[in-house]
Amino acid sequence: MKVAATVLETRDMIRKWKQEGLTIGLVPTMGFLHEGHASLIQKCREENDKVIVSVFLNPTQFGENEDLAAYPRDFERDMMLCEKMGADLIFHPEPEEMYQDSCTFVNITALSDNLCGKTRPTHFKGVCTVVSKLFNIVTPDNAYFGQKDAQQLAIIKKMVKDLNFDIRIVGCPIVREEDGLAKSSRNTYLNEEERSAALCLSKAVREGQRIISMGADSEKVLGPMREIIEKEPLAKIDYINVVDALTMHPVERIENPVLVAMAVYIGRTRLIDNFIYGEE
Amino acid sequence: MKVAATVLETRDMIRKWKQEGLTIGLVPTMGFLHEGHASLIQKCREENDKVIVSVFLNPTQFGENEDLAAYPRDFERDMMLCEKMGADLIFHPEPEEMYQDSCTFVNITALSDNLCGKTRPTHFKGVCTVVSKLFNIVTPDNAYFGQKDAQQLAIIKKMVKDLNFDIRIVGCPIVREEDGLAKSSRNTYLNEEERSAALCLSKAVREGQRIISMGADSEKVLGPMREIIEKEPLAKIDYINVVDALTMHPVERIENPVLVAMAVYIGRTRLIDNFIYGEE
Repeated sequence: MKVAATVLETRDMIRKWKQEGLTIGLVPTMGFLHEGHASLIQKCREENDKVIVSVFLNPTQFGENEDLAAYPRDFERDMMLCEKMGADLIFHPEPEEMYQDSCTFVNITALSDNLCGKTRPTHFKGVCTVVSKLFNIVTPDNAYFGQKDAQQLAIIKKMVKDLNFDIRIVGCPIVREEDGLAKSSRNTYLNEEERSAALCLSKAVREGQRIISMGADSEKVLGPMREIIEKEPLAKIDYINVVDALTMHPVERIENPVLVAMAVYIGRTRLIDNFIYGEE
Repeated sequence: MKVAATVLETRDMIRKWKQEGLTIGLVPTMGFLHEGHASLIQKCREENDKVIVSVFLNPTQFGENEDLAAYPRDFERDMMLCEKMGADLIFHPEPEEMYQDSCTFVNITALSDNLCGKTRPTHFKGVCTVVSKLFNIVTPDNAYFGQKDAQQLAIIKKMVKDLNFDIRIVGCPIVREEDGLAKSSRNTYLNEEERSAALCLSKAVREGQRIISMGADSEKVLGPMREIIEKEPLAKIDYINVVDALTMHPVERIENPVLVAMAVYIGRTRLIDNFIYGEE
């Protein structure tokens, strides 16, 4: 496994692989990898000749009062995981390598004005821009994103279509702890009490999944989910909503495939969880 | 020479060429081609194995009160010119092929807030978005743009750098009529009287070039240029300015390479012209 810190090195390696006719898969990450990332790398390993993992804590997708400085990092551990999962190359640039007096950005309207986009108004602009850059640097055939960041996944799919990137986007299921908590680098922020309180998200997800299959409308699904979270004193709902799985716009009656998504503060830590209902 | 109306056909052809190891050059145009475009195609022909000309009148780079509906078209003539200049493929999509419920855009700050960007505030967003799409569809090794649209050229170069497109951008000199008028599809709007009045732009350019080499500051260059244009009753200056050739920001003293650029209304037709001073 190789580690490249520059665009130039990365491109050189990928150019050679492409000349040999090899297929390229990309797993974009912000590092501090967990089993969720491991599942993406594994899927990428199965479907591509060469597996590239980018490890880049992208500053432009954090808002001013968000947790960029506190975000956990452990590149040594990340390297070990990538090696173990069979990655061929880690692209691990410094922010200066990615943004030199940069003033170009990629943005998406419509899908980004709701859910996480409401609380984090510049977040998806940062995501779309850095993912476009990574796509242009790596030029992968396939790219792998977690279903846990469901809005991000929907946005990346739409961006790829709108900007004609010739890349297949693969969404991979949420990976959970044994007790149900969705794996996240941010779980490391939780103290013992909060860790236990955080279970209200996955409990609400399971309850939502149970009710929705009975053909209810959105409010009938959201009510009991909300109740579970509101019973937890350390939890504070940022949003919880039922939206069209493609447009990310709220729906009242559940007909087309929907995304049921939430963001919940557990103490000062903002966690997300979701499920999709109806085949996409 | 082939003509493709869809992204799919275009990609199929280009994929085959790439598999054969051939280099690809792209000349993006809005059609109604003239000798300026011909010079771009010629340069592209010299430097690449395969020459692709896109002919797409991009609606998103026109403002609401601009001349999209009136913009001249003659695809039959465009095809003949492309064939004559040795193009291998014309990509000629309908707007619906390019924009289906599209909500993603590429934008650039800093370089787009001045000059043409002031009068046409959404113009460069439309340009950056469509050029990104064309780059992703054609994936050229080299792409050719006219120096006549100097701000557009600077913006495309910056966008390519910022978003890590692996494409070399080639700027080509302004092509002029015998009497000096810069070639433009919009020259067709001019009646006889206006055509004659339009010479004030190139006259001002020549005067500016004469003065600037004497080491003057910006105001000393702009004064006599303005005078030439203001003497012409049919002409109305939109802007005329000396800007840094890279940042597009106004400069007072001429030290780094500068762009001296103007937009002038001749009757209702808005024409542009410019020159660069100091090597880039």
